Amino acid sequence: MKLIQSFGPNPRVVRMFLLEKGVEVASEEVDILDGETHRTPYLDRNPTGLSPSLELDDGTILGETVAICELIEDFHPKPVILGADPIARARSRMWYRRVELLITEHMYNAFRYGHAYELFRDRTYCIPEAAEGLKEKARVGRHWLDSLMHNHEFITGDTLNLADIILYCCWDFTKDLGQPIETELKNLYPWYQRMSERPSAQASVHPASEKIGMVG
Amino acid sequence: MKLIQSFGPNPRVVRMFLLEKGVEVASEEVDILDGETHRTPYLDRNPTGLSPSLELDDGTILGETVAICELIEDFHPKPVILGADPIARARSRMWYRRVELLITEHMYNAFRYGHAYELFRDRTYCIPEAAEGLKEKARVGRHWLDSLMHNHEFITGDTLNLADIILYCCWDFTKDLGQPIETELKNLYPWYQRMSERPSAQASVHPASEKIGMVG
Repeated sequence: MKLIQSFGPNPRVVRMFLLEKGVEVASEEVDILDGETHRTPYLDRNPTGLSPSLELDDGTILGETVAICELIEDFHPKPVILGADPIARARSRMWYRRVELLITEHMYNAFRYGHAYELFRDRTYCIPEAAEGLKEKARVGRHWLDSLMHNHEFITGDTLNLADIILYCCWDFTKDLGQPIETELKNLYPWYQRMSERPSAQASVHPASEKIGMVG
Repeated sequence: MKLIQSFGPNPRVVRMFLLEKGVEVASEEVDILDGETHRTPYLDRNPTGLSPSLELDDGTILGETVAICELIEDFHPKPVILGADPIARARSRMWYRRVELLITEHMYNAFRYGHAYELFRDRTYCIPEAAEGLKEKARVGRHWLDSLMHNHEFITGDTLNLADIILYCCWDFTKDLGQPIETELKNLYPWYQRMSERPSAQASVHPASEKIGMVG
């Protein structure tokens, strides 16, 4: 397997997941800021133009962050992050999907349509008039999630889940880009601080982050 | 297992998936139009207020359509829809996720923020100014998907996938609600017609659809 990756919060999710699993994979860099992900040959490998992708040993290219993480756990079951049985895996899927569809997708789209519109207008269909509303919708989603955490250490309970990594990497990216961390969140703010202290959090940041001025 | 379900395109995805699998599960009806999904006791079982949910034999409630379908395939592997091995499953996850994040989520949100704003304004944070842009973004996504189908019978190749069921149920729902079927799509329009002819397509429509005047 080879991870085709770049700067960015989604590649960081896979890097952080791999670090938490203790799994090393070969890596190939693609320059997302330069737009290499939106030109051939990358587009021939992943027609979404999104990073990262995973090249399997037979040459198959797998896209989509959560599909990549699920396959890594299939190949390397321990330590368990997604679940050791079908019901635990289903519960993880329910939660990372809620986090994505109700929170982080809105945060990413708000970033693309607003703060980073000039970068994304030629890469994807942008809806600039939606940017502020999406930020607010994501904020409402974070407050909803906060209300469900009941002093648990992690989003889904007492163990780290992919849902935690997804929300953490997204928020750590957007927090300085018009979507700040809400310190009034009783559960999610301390959770964000705890997540930041994990060795995988720092080690998963792309080395170009400082130069770019964003955390991804 | 018991499916807690209602009228609607997402419950229809699970119904159609079950019919294609040949699996029968017990069913409990919840009235989504009346708002029963957005009140206790349903909210205590599924805090998103979204339908459907799956009650497992130990009383656990599982939400999220794709998590439910994945678990059904784990319990009933044949006929294979999502994949018989980890790589095939990963490929399915990649494709249904692309269909959802690049197409159907925008279609549903356009419906909620636009056509059905009066129904949804008290149920979820709506962004009415995004409705038209979301329709256009989904249209662009459908054209992108169409360009990748290469005369395949289904979205991911030559066998039915959950991605097909998700897009079909969404489009069959929104087609009369301001997001028409584009007959100029060389692959997706014939695909839509073929999907409509499957016995599971008709049999999965909720009996209240005619009265409601929407297909779900």
